[in-house]
Amino acid sequence: MSPSRKIDIAARLSRQWLASWSVGVENGEMSELTIWTYDWVPQGPRGFVRDLRLRWACEEAGLAYSVRTVPFEGRETNHLSRQPFGQLPFLDDGALHIFESGAGLLHLARKDEKLMPRDPEGEAETVQWMMAALNSIEMVTVPWWFLEISGAADNGLAGWVGNRLSQLEKVLAEREWLAADRFTAADLLMADVLRVSKLRSFGNRPATDHYVARVTGRPAFQKAHADQLAHFAAGDESRRAAGQSSVREAGDLTRRQSDVRP
Amino acid sequence: MSPSRKIDIAARLSRQWLASWSVGVENGEMSELTIWTYDWVPQGPRGFVRDLRLRWACEEAGLAYSVRTVPFEGRETNHLSRQPFGQLPFLDDGALHIFESGAGLLHLARKDEKLMPRDPEGEAETVQWMMAALNSIEMVTVPWWFLEISGAADNGLAGWVGNRLSQLEKVLAEREWLAADRFTAADLLMADVLRVSKLRSFGNRPATDHYVARVTGRPAFQKAHADQLAHFAAGDESRRAAGQSSVREAGDLTRRQSDVRP
Repeated sequence: MSPSRKIDIAARLSRQWLASWSVGVENGEMSELTIWTYDWVPQGPRGFVRDLRLRWACEEAGLAYSVRTVPFEGRETNHLSRQPFGQLPFLDDGALHIFESGAGLLHLARKDEKLMPRDPEGEAETVQWMMAALNSIEMVTVPWWFLEISGAADNGLAGWVGNRLSQLEKVLAEREWLAADRFTAADLLMADVLRVSKLRSFGNRPATDHYVARVTGRPAFQKAHADQLAHFAAGDESRRAAGQSSVREAGDLTRRQSDVRP
Repeated sequence: MSPSRKIDIAARLSRQWLASWSVGVENGEMSELTIWTYDWVPQGPRGFVRDLRLRWACEEAGLAYSVRTVPFEGRETNHLSRQPFGQLPFLDDGALHIFESGAGLLHLARKDEKLMPRDPEGEAETVQWMMAALNSIEMVTVPWWFLEISGAADNGLAGWVGNRLSQLEKVLAEREWLAADRFTAADLLMADVLRVSKLRSFGNRPATDHYVARVTGRPAFQKAHADQLAHFAAGDESRRAAGQSSVREAGDLTRRQSDVRP
C-alpha cells in the first residue's frame, strides 16, 4: 500500500469521525455539497471566517449545501487529516474532498456559469483575477494584517500593501467588475479580501470602497454573512449549555491567527 | 463603449507596442503559446523569475512556446495595461491573454494531462495543492523573505513560516507527490515556492529537502532553468552592446522586490 493510499484511508476514517461531531445540517435536506467550518469562534473573526466564501458562492449560484463543523477546541490538530495546515473551510462535493477556500471556490465556479462564464476568454479572465486576489493582493494584505494585530512597531509590509492597493484602485476606477464585464467569482473573492476593516481604513481609495460596497451589497453575500453570524451565535448557545466559556480563547486566537485569517 | 472595453482596446494596442520590443522568438517557430518575461534582470533573481514556472510546465508537457520580453527599465509602468501590478510573467495562448503565474500554470495544466490528471479526483487534488502553494505557503514565505532581505531586525513572520514549513514537512514525509500519486503541476508550483535558498536553510526538514531535490531534478526543470539563465545572459550582451550597465540597478531591485519575487 502506497503512503498516500494510507493517508487516503486515514482521511476517510477521519471523515467518519468528524461527521460524528457535526452540529447537524443547517439548510434543510442533505445535499451533495458540504461546507465544513468551526462549531464556534470568538467574536473577532465572526463574519470573516472563510467558509463565507463558499456559502456566498453557493448562494449566488443557487446551489444547495449543508454546513458541518469541526470543534474549535483542539483545532490545531483535530482535522489535520482533512486539512494539513489545520485551517478551515473545506468542501465536500459527493466523493470529492477539497481544502483551500480558493480551490473550493474554483470548483463551485466551474459548476455554475453565474459564478464564471463558460467562454474561454471569460473563464481565463475570471481565473486570472481569482489568482490575483489570492497571490498578488492577499499574499501582501494578510501578512501585513498579521503584523498589525501582532502590535509590530514598524510594519515592514506597509509600503508594499499601499502600492498594491493603489494599483488595484486604478483598475477599479475604470471598471465595475474585474472580469468579463459582469459579476464573477473573482469579484466575490477580491471583495472578500478587501472588505477587512483595517484595509478599508488604509488610505483613501474611493473606487475600491465603492467596489467593496457594491459587491458585498449583493443579497447572496448578505445571506451568507447573516448565516455565518447565526451559526456562531448558535455555537455560543451550545457552549453555554455545555458550560464552556465563550470568550476564554479569544486572546489565544489573536496570537494564532493563521487558522482564522481575517 | 464600456470602460472595460476601452481597457481591452488599450491592452490590444499595448500588446502591439510590447511586441515591437521583443528580443525575438527563442524557441524556433512561432507558436500559439507565448511567455512574456523581462529582457534582463540583475544576477540575484536569475533562475527565480516566475516565467520559469510557465517554461517548466511547457517543457513537461512538450508544448511548443515562444518567449518574448518587456524592458526591465521602466518596468513599474511599461506593461500596466497587460499586468496591473507591473509583474511578470504573462502568457498568451492565441487570443487568450493571462497574467498571474498561477493562472497561467492552471491554464497550461488544463491543456495536457501530464500536468494534471483528467479524472475529477485527480484534478481537484491538483488544484487544491496548487492553491495551497500560492495561498497557504507562498502567502507566508514571500512576505517573510521580503522582510529578511529588507534587513528587518526581528522578522515577525518567522514563527508562522516555521509552522507552515513543519506542517508541510509532515505531509512530504508520507508521500512522494502532493496529488494523485504522481507528478503534477502542484509539485511544479510547490517545489518552485520551496526551492528559494533562504527557505531551504530555515530549519532542518529532510523530507522537504528530498522533495525539492527530486522535483527540481526533473529534466524539464533543468531545461527551463538553463534557458532562463541563458535568456538573461543574452540580455547582458544586448545591454553591453547598447552601453548599459548590467549591474547598475541591482540595489534598486532589492528594494523593489515585488516585481521579481524569489
